[in-house]
Amino acid sequence: MKKIRTILVSVEEADFGLFLRLLQGNLLFHLPNQSKGQKNMFKTIIEPRVSETDGVGHINNTTIPIWFEAGRNKLFKLFTPDSSFENWKMIILNMNVDYVDQIYFGKDTEVYTWVKRIGNTSLELYEEIRQDNRLCAKGTAVYVNHDVKKGKSEVIPEDIRSELEKHRYSENVE
Amino acid sequence: MKKIRTILVSVEEADFGLFLRLLQGNLLFHLPNQSKGQKNMFKTIIEPRVSETDGVGHINNTTIPIWFEAGRNKLFKLFTPDSSFENWKMIILNMNVDYVDQIYFGKDTEVYTWVKRIGNTSLELYEEIRQDNRLCAKGTAVYVNHDVKKGKSEVIPEDIRSELEKHRYSENVE
Amino acid sequence: MKKIRTILVSVEEADFGLFLRLLQGNLLFHLPNQSKGQKNMFKTIIEPRVSETDGVGHINNTTIPIWFEAGRNKLFKLFTPDSSFENWKMIILNMNVDYVDQIYFGKDTEVYTWVKRIGNTSLELYEEIRQDNRLCAKGTAVYVNHDVKKGKSEVIPEDIRSELEKHRYSENVE
Amino acid sequence: MKKIRTILVSVEEADFGLFLRLLQGNLLFHLPNQSKGQKNMFKTIIEPRVSETDGVGHINNTTIPIWFEAGRNKLFKLFTPDSSFENWKMIILNMNVDYVDQIYFGKDTEVYTWVKRIGNTSLELYEEIRQDNRLCAKGTAVYVNHDVKKGKSEVIPEDIRSELEKHRYSENVE
Repeated sequence: MKKIRTILVSVEEADFGLFLRLLQGNLLFHLPNQSKGQKNMFKTIIEPRVSETDGVGHINNTTIPIWFEAGRNKLFKLFTPDSSFENWKMIILNMNVDYVDQIYFGKDTEVYTWVKRIGNTSLELYEEIRQDNRLCAKGTAVYVNHDVKKGKSEVIPEDIRSELEKHRYSENVE
Repeated sequence: MKKIRTILVSVEEADFGLFLRLLQGNLLFHLPNQSKGQKNMFKTIIEPRVSETDGVGHINNTTIPIWFEAGRNKLFKLFTPDSSFENWKMIILNMNVDYVDQIYFGKDTEVYTWVKRIGNTSLELYEEIRQDNRLCAKGTAVYVNHDVKKGKSEVIPEDIRSELEKHRYSENVE
Repeated sequence: MKKIRTILVSVEEADFGLFLRLLQGNLLFHLPNQSKGQKNMFKTIIEPRVSETDGVGHINNTTIPIWFEAGRNKLFKLFTPDSSFENWKMIILNMNVDYVDQIYFGKDTEVYTWVKRIGNTSLELYEEIRQDNRLCAKGTAVYVNHDVKKGKSEVIPEDIRSELEKHRYSENVE
Repeated sequence: MKKIRTILVSVEEADFGLFLRLLQGNLLFHLPNQSKGQKNMFKTIIEPRVSETDGVGHINNTTIPIWFEAGRNKLFKLFTPDSSFENWKMIILNMNVDYVDQIYFGKDTEVYTWVKRIGNTSLELYEEIRQDNRLCAKGTAVYVNHDVKKGKSEVIPEDIRSELEKHRYSENVE
């Protein structure tokens, strides 16, 4: 049986939203067999490049955010169907990455992207990178639906919202 | 006066350490005027490159971890004085970035690196990127002192530890 | 029998270097329908990433050498079957790129890699990048078969040589 | 009066392209002590980043074009004084790089940028990368002065032209 520890936390009102998000991130940490039975994610195959390795001999840590961003292409297309930067919408607010295991050059790698939380104007993703079925990196990314031309954030439209729902990370799947 | 909200949190024992770190991250968020009065950090000047921008017109989000890593060069040298990869020690475990404001091509940018926490074998950094004295990004990075040849983590030696202390982020400075 | 071509060149001294380069570029350029009928190349599909664009709105020029290198993965595997850096062989000597047309985010892109010339220890590649069947970039790369551990260049072995022959760029195909 | 050079070239058809390129490379190559006495170039100091190395243990070849582009920042500013992408002018047409020697992590590196040739609408640069006074890479880049909004190339204005003249690579300096 898992031991539970309880703590009383006091946070400033203004920080409460962020705090809850961090808590959520924490919850993720002990989801057993994270992507098991989760079939509705976006999946992107990455062929590692020599230029993405570093002197230590593996994929450099700064490559991971690049691959995670590559894995979001279908999401970007949902918000900007013509893929133009004039109509760009998705602006990143936060990124968190746990480096779990080494990634090697010479083997295909998978990026998995789930929708973790859909807010009013924002959106949180849960992402994993796996190689040979080993979990190598996982993390979250928070985006806001921001109209670059108008310079303001906008409510995520219903049609996009229902499309996003199809790629939800389900916390109840075993 | 700032409103305070209190919440009771229950976490599994195994996740407690991570949870505390996330809390610390949260605390950082409302430190007023973060780098004010903090003079002991590592400071690196970055001249933005065209290749580091993206189609939206600013520095791309994946460039930020690259710049933060560039800002850690003096720390890497502390652990690996000959800068060789055979003797490399610093392996990253976690990275968290808050994207606060846009960064523009054509203006020098500063990366600030503080030591936030020194553990037994690990080390947490607090980092900021500023342009024209605007806070543009901030984040944390957790590293472990790992001997690549022996394949195991090692206690951070005393001489390095006392050097790290000189670059501590002080939470009490106004 | 090999055809010999003779040419008398008269240029201003100051322009001599550029002239030769342009001439060479031009020779490549007006090969009619370059990749038409050339079926033996290595072909790699690239899905452009936001991080690979720049503020002007297209794929940045520094991304092209990265994609060309990505297109050489099967060649690297030929020289280093275990994909390890301890046994790495292919060291680049020269790279030449002609930027022919813009490459857009949002559309798959193809990298074509041919073997143009096989020397004693070295190897020249001819490479193209195409999007929507438009030629966007083309270039050459010269590599040497260099044993990193012994620190010396080595003759390209017969078995690799015959494999390379299968991917020859044929200048006589219409 | 301009010196004219004439040369009769006979090569095997198959080797013709390569021959011209090598010839050109060679012309550049045996300029005695290339940057000796050349003081009018743009000079940019680069601090190598871990993310710019690769598994072989040195700076990856795809980093070189990125550093060369970084070295052109002052030129970009000459053509686009406000550093905005709406007013961007400099579009690359060709890049050629000779990889001469390894570049190591842990040591500052210099990028030198000269103006090699000023055409009507275009411009050729000669560039070098040096570490510890070792020549590590050299190359050329051809740019055109292209008005992105109007979609057409334009004559390089006189004021820019005279500024460029100050950074000329002089072939007669010993």
